[in-house]
Amino acid sequence: MNPILESLEPSLIRAVYNRKRPDDLDLCLGEPVLPVDLQAFEAAVAWVRDHRCPYGPTTGLLELREAIVHHYRYPFLTAPENVCVTVGSEEAAYIALRAAVDPATDEVLVVEPAYPVYARICLIEGIRCRTVALTADDGFAPRAELVIEALGPDTRLVVLCSPSNPTGRIWPREELERLASALHDRPGPPVQVLFDEVYRELYYSSEAPTSMAALYPHTWVASSLSKSHALTGLRVGWLMAPRAGIAAATRVHHLAVTSSSTFSQRVALELFGKPASFGAHRQHYLTRHAFVKERLLAHRFDHVLGEGAFYCLIRLEGARAGDSVAAAFDLLETARVATVPGRAFGMPCEGWLRVSWVAGPEVLREGLERLRNWMSA
Amino acid sequence: MNPILESLEPSLIRAVYNRKRPDDLDLCLGEPVLPVDLQAFEAAVAWVRDHRCPYGPTTGLLELREAIVHHYRYPFLTAPENVCVTVGSEEAAYIALRAAVDPATDEVLVVEPAYPVYARICLIEGIRCRTVALTADDGFAPRAELVIEALGPDTRLVVLCSPSNPTGRIWPREELERLASALHDRPGPPVQVLFDEVYRELYYSSEAPTSMAALYPHTWVASSLSKSHALTGLRVGWLMAPRAGIAAATRVHHLAVTSSSTFSQRVALELFGKPASFGAHRQHYLTRHAFVKERLLAHRFDHVLGEGAFYCLIRLEGARAGDSVAAAFDLLETARVATVPGRAFGMPCEGWLRVSWVAGPEVLREGLERLRNWMSA
Repeated sequence: MNPILESLEPSLIRAVYNRKRPDDLDLCLGEPVLPVDLQAFEAAVAWVRDHRCPYGPTTGLLELREAIVHHYRYPFLTAPENVCVTVGSEEAAYIALRAAVDPATDEVLVVEPAYPVYARICLIEGIRCRTVALTADDGFAPRAELVIEALGPDTRLVVLCSPSNPTGRIWPREELERLASALHDRPGPPVQVLFDEVYRELYYSSEAPTSMAALYPHTWVASSLSKSHALTGLRVGWLMAPRAGIAAATRVHHLAVTSSSTFSQRVALELFGKPASFGAHRQHYLTRHAFVKERLLAHRFDHVLGEGAFYCLIRLEGARAGDSVAAAFDLLETARVATVPGRAFGMPCEGWLRVSWVAGPEVLREGLERLRNWMSA
Repeated sequence: MNPILESLEPSLIRAVYNRKRPDDLDLCLGEPVLPVDLQAFEAAVAWVRDHRCPYGPTTGLLELREAIVHHYRYPFLTAPENVCVTVGSEEAAYIALRAAVDPATDEVLVVEPAYPVYARICLIEGIRCRTVALTADDGFAPRAELVIEALGPDTRLVVLCSPSNPTGRIWPREELERLASALHDRPGPPVQVLFDEVYRELYYSSEAPTSMAALYPHTWVASSLSKSHALTGLRVGWLMAPRAGIAAATRVHHLAVTSSSTFSQRVALELFGKPASFGAHRQHYLTRHAFVKERLLAHRFDHVLGEGAFYCLIRLEGARAGDSVAAAFDLLETARVATVPGRAFGMPCEGWLRVSWVAGPEVLREGLERLRNWMSA
């Protein structure tokens, strides 16, 4: 047996999830609960009726890859050869991390707070991984300067997520420009950027988030339809990257999964044919975002509620702030509210809980009230 | 960039596929062309209508894992915890190879002729891999003795495929028993067996193939619905293994793809509810198998036509026998028949071509005639 896999600790998100009972209030859920576009599924079935359900090309259906580059219009990622259709954005991140660095010499730099999988993938793949922390003092505001200062001689890949899980913060265009400019000016082989924008469509600011791919040629984009279209179970996403990157990443993709589901890709192709569907859920989340904001203020939580995604962070008070894992389990046991301990997202988040606000207002209202009572007890 | 991925040569199967023109006769195709069960797709859409399309559990829907263990009734793999639902049997093999051995100390032994991905996965994952050859003299008949003799002190995983791609040969029960017995008697940590049975339902002998999982407790089974149900594009398969193996393999699965498509799993669940569907295509293949046999004999090809799967091997004659890759490309260029060079399946197959017989009788008849004329020219 592989000792690295045997010794890997279960993810803290999964640990809470496994301890949750059916009638606990769920504020840890990371998936939308909105209706899905059934017409797209029906169209895909009609396609299967006419074409059966054969393998597609390894990198994905050509029409879908064309639709993806056309939809995003990133200046350096314009050809179908810049795309590999994946099993969700998770596989996109996985094959990107496998391809973009030489495990023998290179280092990955992950900007925290961060979704824990990047570091965990590095761990099981023997890739050196270092982290750089955004700071709680300014609400984990994205700051290029911190990332630039943290670059080491071996750093060959920087991992960013915007809008961020768990903070909801969006990297402003000027911060990304600053980062792109510094990376561009760096001597030696270019530093690649893995830019996870799976929450890209879920923003509550006046302007859509800027993608690093709009600014920097060495960007690898991981994304999917999971969050924008409430289709986490469809497992369709994509990696967009320079051609050589896609070529290398596709080798892992081919050996790990052969290709993505043809059916799921047909559903995706239907949805790319309806560009308005990408923003269709935004109004719903905007209303919920305002509701959560009002509740957080009413309960006087010290909190971070970013401009995107569907999470917020709530700071633990007093003695509880020292151990977010113990706190999250105590909250679950005594008040029956499931949240994710901040430590899951790196040490900068220790002392916080991540609260998902995809649940309905009733659950949110009651959950936050119980959280306040538990915290004040 | 990762140098192992950059330097990995493209697969020979893919190389032929890429050189094939639209009107070439395709005898390299590895996928069935039979109709699919649309009702299963429609039922899955109805389920999505009622339940949306959320993530399932990491290891797959509980009902599906229960249906899988119930369907196969392997004596040592009886619980849902013995199953991880994967993205086709490819991912099952991938996560099994990642989990079953310690790359620092252990060695994998692949029985050739073999589908090339096992060795290629080992290559990109830094796993030591050795091969043992069945012999052309007796038509690549499976022989436990050869495998037992080839076991080394570090061998911790043996990879078998039955029915075999590319030979179509099925491991007889008594040979598997001999192997199981020898592995059982071996001192030291148990040698695991990865048993790829994706062609399990496609057999033309009087009895169904025996699974190693019926005989040996340290068996890891990789399989899928791709071949039995002509659903290669559904990308749903499974790994069955001892619990500790599933636990370790699931960690790779989780970080690489999160989980399998919920929609595809619903389709699979429908099909497991119709056990007769698993053998529904056999009669079709049996007829085709007889047809191919007649044609191979009529053309006096030196050939291996096994008792399962949908491939045969044809031996190259004269000077051509020395280089199956050059031969396959010459056949494609001059006679416009696409086959796979035997070398793709390991050196024991050098000097042979793999011919898939999933195509219709017209294509097969014409393709084999061209092959005969080309060979005799």
